[in-house]
Amino acid sequence: MFEAKVTVQLKKGISDPEGVNTLKAIHLLGFPKVKNAKTIRTFNLTIDGTDKNQVKKDVEQICQRLLTNPVIHQYEITIEEKK
Amino acid sequence: MFEAKVTVQLKKGISDPEGVNTLKAIHLLGFPKVKNAKTIRTFNLTIDGTDKNQVKKDVEQICQRLLTNPVIHQYEITIEEKK
Repeated sequence: MFEAKVTVQLKKGISDPEGVNTLKAIHLLGFPKVKNAKTIRTFNLTIDGTDKNQVKKDVEQICQRLLTNPVIHQYEITIEEKK
Repeated sequence: MFEAKVTVQLKKGISDPEGVNTLKAIHLLGFPKVKNAKTIRTFNLTIDGTDKNQVKKDVEQICQRLLTNPVIHQYEITIEEKK
């Protein structure tokens, strides 16, 4: 059993409307010292299997085909064995 | 200048429709070995200031008033000094 953590964030230079609006709301709440807000999505996947390399390949595929848009996103995968 | 990382996830027992649907889609893609999918949001905030305790208090406030819903979410804050 493995636990895969996929972190998906926007590439540099891609505008982050959710971050921009979060920042606006934070300013409206009265916290002008906050200078920047950025959002990141993480997917935690629990995967059955014994071969870490195969699991890694599968997660790569899942990222490329479902979880991320290669035009705007960059992603990182970390895989840990789970007991 | 500080960098605050706020991790927001659903409390245990609260259903995660996004995770459920991600899992369904992963199965449809042909990866039945994935047994569970869970989604987590992270906000990275850049904050001006010199007093770490004050920054922490501000981020607490921002979490409680804006970023999270205390009924369904649990959150974690980590603050690092940035040069």
